Amino acid sequence: MLGRLYESEICSAARTLEVAGERWSLLIVRNAVFAGMTRFTDFQRSLGIAPNVLTKRLNEFVAEGVFELRVDPASGKDEYVITQKGLDLKPVIVALTEWGDKWVADSRGKPISYVHDGCTGTVSLVPTCTKCGSHPTNRQLRARLARWFQDLRNGGAATKA
Amino acid sequence: MLGRLYESEICSAARTLEVAGERWSLLIVRNAVFAGMTRFTDFQRSLGIAPNVLTKRLNEFVAEGVFELRVDPASGKDEYVITQKGLDLKPVIVALTEWGDKWVADSRGKPISYVHDGCTGTVSLVPTCTKCGSHPTNRQLRARLARWFQDLRNGGAATKA
Repeated sequence: MLGRLYESEICSAARTLEVAGERWSLLIVRNAVFAGMTRFTDFQRSLGIAPNVLTKRLNEFVAEGVFELRVDPASGKDEYVITQKGLDLKPVIVALTEWGDKWVADSRGKPISYVHDGCTGTVSLVPTCTKCGSHPTNRQLRARLARWFQDLRNGGAATKA
Repeated sequence: MLGRLYESEICSAARTLEVAGERWSLLIVRNAVFAGMTRFTDFQRSLGIAPNVLTKRLNEFVAEGVFELRVDPASGKDEYVITQKGLDLKPVIVALTEWGDKWVADSRGKPISYVHDGCTGTVSLVPTCTKCGSHPTNRQLRARLARWFQDLRNGGAATKA
């Protein structure tokens, strides 16, 4: 019980999914960060998403600081502008894309590559060890719980360290 | 209309979300790949997820080849064993964790680090340019559509190249 409570409250991946894990959320972010979309109608048209669902998602994102709601001075229309917090979801989208390219790809090849602006080289996410500098495979990657988190899971008492 | 159809069908990130984007899906994978869980009751207890939802998710994962259903010869119990396809979702979970650590972290610090098995150094996903070798920031990362995908979006005709 305690384990479950803490696990779902504390794990950063779970927390991220709380913010961006609802249906459509990451596709809205994708269209903002990689296609530069800011308008409700553009998100709506490109995703074919029900307007009430889109309204809900965008409002949640504004509340979370993933998007900022501004009024375009020229047109007087609302704009949903991605924030740094939203831009930082790019690696999540790249990781999803890399898995999709490998495992559920279109027979015509990768539809989208991520490129280094300016240099135009393709960019991939490389797991890199900060100690030995090597690039561990997925099998060589394991999770280590912080001491305070271990203590919480074991006994419910906060660590003193 | 065509744009939307192709966009949702073709984009690899969207395809990945079709497989692993439902509520609980990535947390089930997380518990399999990083905590080594294989048993229905362990997933159920650790996540506090409704049994009927867990059954649905696991069945979908088995159908997609993310998990393999086996019977443990010793106990005679069902085991949901992660496949290579499932293991390859590790970077998605790491990317979600890194965003969560930065933007919605627990005040006590990172609960979980990812480490290089053996070496024990912490591992992070480093965006790396395959051309110049540098590490683009999120702002320097942009999407490039493959020619065939561009053609599809522009006219609906398949590219000849």
